[in-house]
Amino acid sequence: MSGIDVAIIGVGLVGSAVIAQLGTAASAASMRVVALQNSKKALLAKPGQQLALSGWKDALAASSANAFALDELVKHLEALRDSNKRHIAVVDNTSDQSVAQFYPSFLKAGFSVVTPNKKAFSGSLDLHLAIQQNVAHGVSSTRGPLVYQESTVGAGLPIISTLQDLVMTGDEVKCIEGVLSGTMSYIFNEFSPPGGGTRKFSEVVAVARENGYTEPHPADDLSGSDVARKLTILSRLIPALSEALPEGFSSVPTQSLTPEPLLDEKNADVYVKRLAEFDQHFDELRAKAQAHNSVLRYVGVIDVPSKTIKASLETYPATHAFATSLGGSDNIMSFSSSRYNNRPLIVQGSGAGADVTAMGVVADLLRVAERRA
Amino acid sequence: MSGIDVAIIGVGLVGSAVIAQLGTAASAASMRVVALQNSKKALLAKPGQQLALSGWKDALAASSANAFALDELVKHLEALRDSNKRHIAVVDNTSDQSVAQFYPSFLKAGFSVVTPNKKAFSGSLDLHLAIQQNVAHGVSSTRGPLVYQESTVGAGLPIISTLQDLVMTGDEVKCIEGVLSGTMSYIFNEFSPPGGGTRKFSEVVAVARENGYTEPHPADDLSGSDVARKLTILSRLIPALSEALPEGFSSVPTQSLTPEPLLDEKNADVYVKRLAEFDQHFDELRAKAQAHNSVLRYVGVIDVPSKTIKASLETYPATHAFATSLGGSDNIMSFSSSRYNNRPLIVQGSGAGADVTAMGVVADLLRVAERRA
Repeated sequence: MSGIDVAIIGVGLVGSAVIAQLGTAASAASMRVVALQNSKKALLAKPGQQLALSGWKDALAASSANAFALDELVKHLEALRDSNKRHIAVVDNTSDQSVAQFYPSFLKAGFSVVTPNKKAFSGSLDLHLAIQQNVAHGVSSTRGPLVYQESTVGAGLPIISTLQDLVMTGDEVKCIEGVLSGTMSYIFNEFSPPGGGTRKFSEVVAVARENGYTEPHPADDLSGSDVARKLTILSRLIPALSEALPEGFSSVPTQSLTPEPLLDEKNADVYVKRLAEFDQHFDELRAKAQAHNSVLRYVGVIDVPSKTIKASLETYPATHAFATSLGGSDNIMSFSSSRYNNRPLIVQGSGAGADVTAMGVVADLLRVAERRA
Repeated sequence: MSGIDVAIIGVGLVGSAVIAQLGTAASAASMRVVALQNSKKALLAKPGQQLALSGWKDALAASSANAFALDELVKHLEALRDSNKRHIAVVDNTSDQSVAQFYPSFLKAGFSVVTPNKKAFSGSLDLHLAIQQNVAHGVSSTRGPLVYQESTVGAGLPIISTLQDLVMTGDEVKCIEGVLSGTMSYIFNEFSPPGGGTRKFSEVVAVARENGYTEPHPADDLSGSDVARKLTILSRLIPALSEALPEGFSSVPTQSLTPEPLLDEKNADVYVKRLAEFDQHFDELRAKAQAHNSVLRYVGVIDVPSKTIKASLETYPATHAFATSLGGSDNIMSFSSSRYNNRPLIVQGSGAGADVTAMGVVADLLRVAERRA
């Protein structure tokens, strides 16, 4: 294999882990990093060369090149490709909408896109379709650009590839259901364990925030929009629902756990403090669930026959897998289909964190290398 | 994509399901079936043509061509490839050792191999290495033959691909543990459910056999050799253990559940009947587990640091995922690694049956088509 060249946008926690994993022998065999940039600086390899992965942080900080505008980056990469004669994959490790908007341009230039960034696939259907069109009609039908996005749902867990395999082999997907937010998982595993729970909701949220399990403002987790985005990504992979959400995640009925009076509270400290005023509400929900020997879980559900897609707080029997086998910030995803009918196919494990997210990205890059090297 | 050509050996339950799934639009897009054979008859497409998948059973029964010897089949396929200019994948749906032995020859001829047949990967290390060598040094480095074998463990569940992704992205796999035999799963889910169990072991085995969940002779399941084969396949994918089992599954310490006096009982009816003489032994094991609020599960374990690979009957707390979330003949596989450390990555679902086995085969074929079309 002659291999592929890789351009990396975003070198924060996930980006750094991607570079570290690319440094391991097995995965680096067929891949070279030829461009790196964060929001300030850039590094670009000379034709025929690659960037040294040891010491990349210092090199980037010391670089005289400012970060390239994306259209400028495309020109540099086109020049590299023309000289190196290798396929190029662009890795977007940001969570920026502006980078996501640019995927059709990367694809039109013939570059594959690999990303854990949910924005491109969970927003407007127009952007999603523009991406799909340019994958289908790449520069050349067999050597054209690819898009891989395993880490957009469940980080490195095999969720998107499993759904694609079910669909591509002709199975009829009936229901997908799961705990898709690591933060929501942690909060309810702590607040509503099987057998009961005694902690206050506001305390659990405060501890989650202190441990770095939430976004800087916990309302960004409690809004449910992260779950709605993941549901959008998954439903677009199911033929019967591929165009069901014209506006993307904002078309998904989503239950926010932020109490009405706090919806406009921009100050995270005040928000967490005032959440205690509403503990009784959550206590009541938990008590009601416990009275039926059930627990509370914030889940995403896609029911294909009824075309129901929703993110909401639900109750599950204390013996259900969502109650018994989850811990920490585990994600769990259950697929029911014609083939996996009485007993669903289940994938579970850590669904957040730089290392497992990077694993999904690097595994996707290996797939691009296998197909385009 | 110009697509690939597919030659199918074995058209029993799994083979028939593979053909049915290839008939669905999504998966058939880039694949044509050009050869089909069972142990008696064969169908071979003319150059430039493909076999009609509707009515293939009648056509095969009516065929004037007897099944080809495998070296003869290779010659026919080479002629087709020279004429069609398409990559060929051979699908082995049998469980024959003799077909497995022939994989190196298929690969040497440049044909990819896709199979749910465990024999080639769980027997002698020599055969396994001969296969790997011919994948590595195919006819041409980028267009050479591939081997895919997802359905050899857990049928269509993403077990092998997940393990390969962990390894290829540089994760350190520490422990793999799971219920890998659908038959053993059913038997112990029924015999030793969480909270207790009252049925007799011999009764559960008899019912499993009546429902077709066991091999014709249940001793073939109760020997644990199916689990030992799957452990062999998995350990060979882990670099530290890739050559740990020179003789394959027979090198794996494997606990047989057949009572000593029945080891030579070839008559399955007599075997099942006489199993009742040993119910007390299994009752005692169950009672001992229950006394510790635990259940019995027949599991396979690969502990990488200690290089322990074994198949045995073990006890798990009634709250463990192997106790709570299994049902029917579910398989479950738990991966612990540097990245999935405190909380393992878990894959669960039906691990036996023609449709889910065929799904793994067809998904593998799609991967070959993506890489070689």
